[in-house]
Amino acid sequence: MHMVSLEPFVWPDRNELEDRGRRLQELLSPAGWDGALLLQNADLLYFCGTTQAEAVFIPAEGEPLVLARPPFDRCRSETTLPKVAAMPRWPDLGKVLEDHAGRPLAALGLELDVMAVNFFHRLAEAALNGLETPDVSPLVHRVRAIKSEYELSQMRAAARLLDAMFQAVPGLLARGLSEMELEGRLIALAKAHGHQGLIRSRGFNMEMSLGHILSGPSGLVPAKVASPTGGTGINPGFGQGAGPRLIGSNELVSVDLCGAFGGYIVDQARLFFTGPTPERVRTAYALLRDLIEEVKDFIRPGVLSGQVYDRTFAAAEKRGLLDHFMNLDGGPCPFVGHGVGLELDEWPALARGSDIPLAAGMTFALEPRVFLPEYGVVGLEDTYLLTENGPEYITLTSREIRVVEREGA
Amino acid sequence: MHMVSLEPFVWPDRNELEDRGRRLQELLSPAGWDGALLLQNADLLYFCGTTQAEAVFIPAEGEPLVLARPPFDRCRSETTLPKVAAMPRWPDLGKVLEDHAGRPLAALGLELDVMAVNFFHRLAEAALNGLETPDVSPLVHRVRAIKSEYELSQMRAAARLLDAMFQAVPGLLARGLSEMELEGRLIALAKAHGHQGLIRSRGFNMEMSLGHILSGPSGLVPAKVASPTGGTGINPGFGQGAGPRLIGSNELVSVDLCGAFGGYIVDQARLFFTGPTPERVRTAYALLRDLIEEVKDFIRPGVLSGQVYDRTFAAAEKRGLLDHFMNLDGGPCPFVGHGVGLELDEWPALARGSDIPLAAGMTFALEPRVFLPEYGVVGLEDTYLLTENGPEYITLTSREIRVVEREGA
Repeated sequence: MHMVSLEPFVWPDRNELEDRGRRLQELLSPAGWDGALLLQNADLLYFCGTTQAEAVFIPAEGEPLVLARPPFDRCRSETTLPKVAAMPRWPDLGKVLEDHAGRPLAALGLELDVMAVNFFHRLAEAALNGLETPDVSPLVHRVRAIKSEYELSQMRAAARLLDAMFQAVPGLLARGLSEMELEGRLIALAKAHGHQGLIRSRGFNMEMSLGHILSGPSGLVPAKVASPTGGTGINPGFGQGAGPRLIGSNELVSVDLCGAFGGYIVDQARLFFTGPTPERVRTAYALLRDLIEEVKDFIRPGVLSGQVYDRTFAAAEKRGLLDHFMNLDGGPCPFVGHGVGLELDEWPALARGSDIPLAAGMTFALEPRVFLPEYGVVGLEDTYLLTENGPEYITLTSREIRVVEREGA
Repeated sequence: MHMVSLEPFVWPDRNELEDRGRRLQELLSPAGWDGALLLQNADLLYFCGTTQAEAVFIPAEGEPLVLARPPFDRCRSETTLPKVAAMPRWPDLGKVLEDHAGRPLAALGLELDVMAVNFFHRLAEAALNGLETPDVSPLVHRVRAIKSEYELSQMRAAARLLDAMFQAVPGLLARGLSEMELEGRLIALAKAHGHQGLIRSRGFNMEMSLGHILSGPSGLVPAKVASPTGGTGINPGFGQGAGPRLIGSNELVSVDLCGAFGGYIVDQARLFFTGPTPERVRTAYALLRDLIEEVKDFIRPGVLSGQVYDRTFAAAEKRGLLDHFMNLDGGPCPFVGHGVGLELDEWPALARGSDIPLAAGMTFALEPRVFLPEYGVVGLEDTYLLTENGPEYITLTSREIRVVEREGA
């Protein structure tokens, strides 16, 4: 018997995809570039509506050209862009792009933030000889940072799926269950609801499960991962996040997970306590929620991303939280939040020294955390849409600490 | 209540790690290079025993130098290599490496198969100015391809974990369950047994869940993925592998999953049928098993990887299987197997035109498949260790088609 109903997926229509391409074109022309050739899956999903394409060429003017390998049927049936052609052999690629652009190409943007050196050299030598190949990724990030109504509807569906996962935690969480068992049961639920399972990110070595489930002292274990939290992981095979530790009584459990729908991600963290919540934890949490309100009031279009980082630390200092704020002994985490969309490390990184002007339509997660040596990690994370009036919640789950007192797995 | 017992993890000792470094050194010196600087997680896991390092420098002679960011405690406690130092600021990196090597560096190998162009340029300009930076990845692949006894013990533990997952399939598989629900339940089980969840691979756009679960016609759906099988996936968010399709009666279900332990992967695929197995499926499967025996008899140290591909196709032709062999209408899959270890796309790729001499100690998966338009995908995949006498199974699960007749999820 099929247990859950999946939300129906609606494909992005031709206008949606063409608009995305046009927004990139508006940045290509001032840069003096003749087009962009995009190959990475998240970028293909964004500009073509599917990862079944091999590449998409967006000329400085005119329609995008989707390139696919045989069989074309799947790519053709999935993208709503009209022009789909065969991915040429590399020696013919330059000519195919020029023919489509209707003019000679001098500068073609490539995703140099994710393209490996060897691949780049082979591509440049075999296909793009003599072309200038600037890094188009900052332009792609800028375009992708501003979400359309369609994209927001996907993120809201991801938030509903994620809420269903969090609603299940009190029924699953039991003393004696390992962090990894809890994670596995939540993944099973997520998959049943249509979660894609994988969370994309661009960064080198950015490895992710759906997030970090950390109980008690696990919350204090540092790890090499671009996150304020670490965790033991299972063993060196994956040395972060949920581990074999059995969740005990009277413990703080931080559940930080990503939902996903149609490729779009949302990120949220909530706290659970397996027993009556101690005063110390409640106080720290209340201060953190208060801090978040101050930071949300500060975040407006025009504010620079790095200013959010600075303001968050100032707000922590004002509340006496600075001692273990975003800090697992190795110095503070270099960010307090991050852009979220098709990838978990989109623009804007709310990071130290970052100078991206925030704009309406951006979506980001804010994830301040305080480490309490006696209890673990106290945090609250939500994903927001920035509107003209400030951040609005996309994530849905109640923000109270949930008390769970249940024996047995 | 904690439901499963996890196999204890044993860390690689100093001899093991130093031996790995020495084997790379034996290739660095003839190349005339002064060392290698490795940063990618799978390579760090291999040469340091942990991904908590930021980098490892392996000089052409002498001891490896592990570089870590603060706090060093975790990296120091996880690696059994003796020399761990602070990751310097980039402008100081060259000097730190030269001081450790005890000589000036002229050529330093880098992982140019996975290092992004932007990162490479920043590294080269800020830290390695004037140094020659050849691609060390073919040497790393060659060293990593030959597994030690320690590594094989991890792969055997991964095979036991994977066998437990497959043993659970008949109890979970039920008509009316979606492919994704079945996948989720198997992931929950895997996580409870200590599966790391993530499967590493080096290739660009190589996105993986634990594998592909494909029922009936889903087995015939092509997708852009380096695999003989495709599948719908849930939606464009992840357009391969298990999808929302409900598994019906009298259907062929192909379950292709990876186990993992201590970072090491094994890969196997088995068939299930939700009803009496039709003659056509049994015949194709018997021919495929017979083909595998022929190919196994052919595989010996010294044979070239591409010859395995050719021989497999010749064996398919001899058995009248060529029509839909490794072929989802877009031309045949360019490989019939792949090296397996810390990553799913290790050496040797058993691929068309590949010319890596096979050697004892290599581990690989062989995955021939026949597509039957009426039923789906018929396949059998195992992971093998190549010995002097030929391939030996690492994966454990019975190779019969399992008949499952059970109503309800």
